[in-house]
Amino acid sequence: MKRRIAILGSTGSIGTQALNVIEKHPDHFEVEVLTAQKNAELLIRQAIHFKPSVVVINHDKYYTQVKEALEGHDIKVYTGDESIAQVVEMVSIDTVLIALVGFAGLMPTINAIKANKNIALANKESLVVAGDLIKKHLKDSKASIIPVDSEHSAIFQCLAGEDIQTVEKIILTASGGPFRNLSLDDLKNVSREDALNHPNWNMGNKITIDSASLINKGLEVIEAKWLFGLTSDQIEVVIHPQSIIHSLVQFYDGSIKAQMSLPDMRIPIQYALGYPERMQADFKRFSFLDYPELTFEAPDVKKFRNLALAFKAMEQGGNMPCILNAANEIAVQAFLQNQIKFLDMPDVIEKCMERVEYNENPGINDYLSTDVETRELAHFLIGQMDK
Amino acid sequence: MKRRIAILGSTGSIGTQALNVIEKHPDHFEVEVLTAQKNAELLIRQAIHFKPSVVVINHDKYYTQVKEALEGHDIKVYTGDESIAQVVEMVSIDTVLIALVGFAGLMPTINAIKANKNIALANKESLVVAGDLIKKHLKDSKASIIPVDSEHSAIFQCLAGEDIQTVEKIILTASGGPFRNLSLDDLKNVSREDALNHPNWNMGNKITIDSASLINKGLEVIEAKWLFGLTSDQIEVVIHPQSIIHSLVQFYDGSIKAQMSLPDMRIPIQYALGYPERMQADFKRFSFLDYPELTFEAPDVKKFRNLALAFKAMEQGGNMPCILNAANEIAVQAFLQNQIKFLDMPDVIEKCMERVEYNENPGINDYLSTDVETRELAHFLIGQMDK
Repeated sequence: MKRRIAILGSTGSIGTQALNVIEKHPDHFEVEVLTAQKNAELLIRQAIHFKPSVVVINHDKYYTQVKEALEGHDIKVYTGDESIAQVVEMVSIDTVLIALVGFAGLMPTINAIKANKNIALANKESLVVAGDLIKKHLKDSKASIIPVDSEHSAIFQCLAGEDIQTVEKIILTASGGPFRNLSLDDLKNVSREDALNHPNWNMGNKITIDSASLINKGLEVIEAKWLFGLTSDQIEVVIHPQSIIHSLVQFYDGSIKAQMSLPDMRIPIQYALGYPERMQADFKRFSFLDYPELTFEAPDVKKFRNLALAFKAMEQGGNMPCILNAANEIAVQAFLQNQIKFLDMPDVIEKCMERVEYNENPGINDYLSTDVETRELAHFLIGQMDK
Repeated sequence: MKRRIAILGSTGSIGTQALNVIEKHPDHFEVEVLTAQKNAELLIRQAIHFKPSVVVINHDKYYTQVKEALEGHDIKVYTGDESIAQVVEMVSIDTVLIALVGFAGLMPTINAIKANKNIALANKESLVVAGDLIKKHLKDSKASIIPVDSEHSAIFQCLAGEDIQTVEKIILTASGGPFRNLSLDDLKNVSREDALNHPNWNMGNKITIDSASLINKGLEVIEAKWLFGLTSDQIEVVIHPQSIIHSLVQFYDGSIKAQMSLPDMRIPIQYALGYPERMQADFKRFSFLDYPELTFEAPDVKKFRNLALAFKAMEQGGNMPCILNAANEIAVQAFLQNQIKFLDMPDVIEKCMERVEYNENPGINDYLSTDVETRELAHFLIGQMDK
């Protein structure tokens, strides 16, 4: 039987690559739902090609355009955040790929868990912000979360057939981003264009900036803590500029497993959509002859303070990762709009972590208000900064 | 319940390291049988310390010495090949660690299979010589073989939780040995002392020479073919001088898993003895900070012809790997005794492969006679060579 897939965020980098995977396996998958933020044109093309039952265009100003374009195609068209959060509950869906960027992934993830869906999770912020809540919901549900991030997919793959109790630590690899070899002084004046020029992975803008500032790795560390039920001191980061080894698990006998491949997000996407089945694919193969040297170094948290802040937020727990994430989302936006400089981003995040009220045991409404409050503060702080 | 272990070859490199592992886990293991070739003194000390029910000293000239030393210890003492081959059938044994060197491992392995034992196999030659026979016996038995070789243990660990049908190929890593960077001309005059100076692993003499000539990797390739049910073109070798990644499995979605650690044979030994349980251990941990570069290169089969000969023997099948192995055992012996030079070894092997009669479907007696015949021819060829 074919697996029926909902893709939340189908016009983004993960979404389009997921559709590429689905197209290569017509006997395994069919598309049931597609949602997009505002790329109406691409959503329309995807809908006509993949014939889902439902599409959601989030921004209502594009609703009529999509609705009219899909007239006569037997595809229901909805709009708005609410529709995206609810569409995951459709009984006709087996697997939900959550490829939304940022905090927006949280409510659909919780709803998909409540609806007992298989979840292929490409949105790390939902676990970063509210990992404890998500874990609680998972306990009362038949839902499962299979990670899509290449690092977490690597760890998930390395854990196949192993007992999680035997894990001593995990090591997340990071490319180090385009600024790895710059001095702190050089970092002051890097531009958004410099940052968007990522050497290894083809990704969206937000995650590319996050990679350049290493906060992406920090968010992944927090994500990993929740996904795999680890403690803060069981997670390490190592810089690995070639991005071939995607992450590693060290077991308590000293044995380490690593998962590797050429950098191609379609591999973890396919693994997550097909899990527990590994499916054949013709993705370009890795060869040691092309990579005679794999190199590794410790991350420099003095240059990349965001990573240290993320570890700190993880250790403090409560709503602190939510504050970290919200502050970062606003800071990245401001950096992309040339409102602040690269090194202003950790300042914004740190100040938000100091000033927004700490809550040790937040519920969903606390997270929502922390998120709103932090964004306001971050906007305010950015407004005060000299460009 | 404790697992009762028989160690065949307890005074060798693998045997002593296995006893070290067992000593660290007194709640998991007890020693039931120890056997040694001729190191009576060490065998006696091991017996007094680990209190097995039975010891076998292979060379009968040491029998009285061992017998007398163990008087009053409630330990039965036997001698001879027959005793070693038979002792594995004792009902009181759960797991047999076969750490014998060379062809001598074959009969005990087959007997252990017939007796439905868990087999921790450190003797690669038995699978190299008679892999098809061993597989046939395994089919009719409840026995299982868990590999002890670090490379095969790596692959075995990477296959945990995976479907063997999804394996595209495996990549065995090789340190490249002490002569990796020598020219063919330099190789002509390397001495046994040069060869015995292996940088990464602490091993016995035979396997150390085999590593220097790369035939060890060739034997491992053949071993892997049988262990994992692969075809010749599914097995590759890559030189990895740091010996950190012990081997890799590439799946048919392009994902690769690797197993790594500091070079310490106790890790795969413990894994094999404890399987399917992974047990805690305090072996020194790997750190990328000590290994900032892992390097890889293709093996040079013009310099190390033994590796090419092994691939050829594997592809030809039948008794050819048996010929390869027997010729190599005699050649290594002669090299260790300064009778022939390093580059004479592939000559001896190649000539034996040309001259001993090929048998496509050998039975156990054919293997035994091929082995004897090849050894005679190899001795003859060596006698004709100028030193």
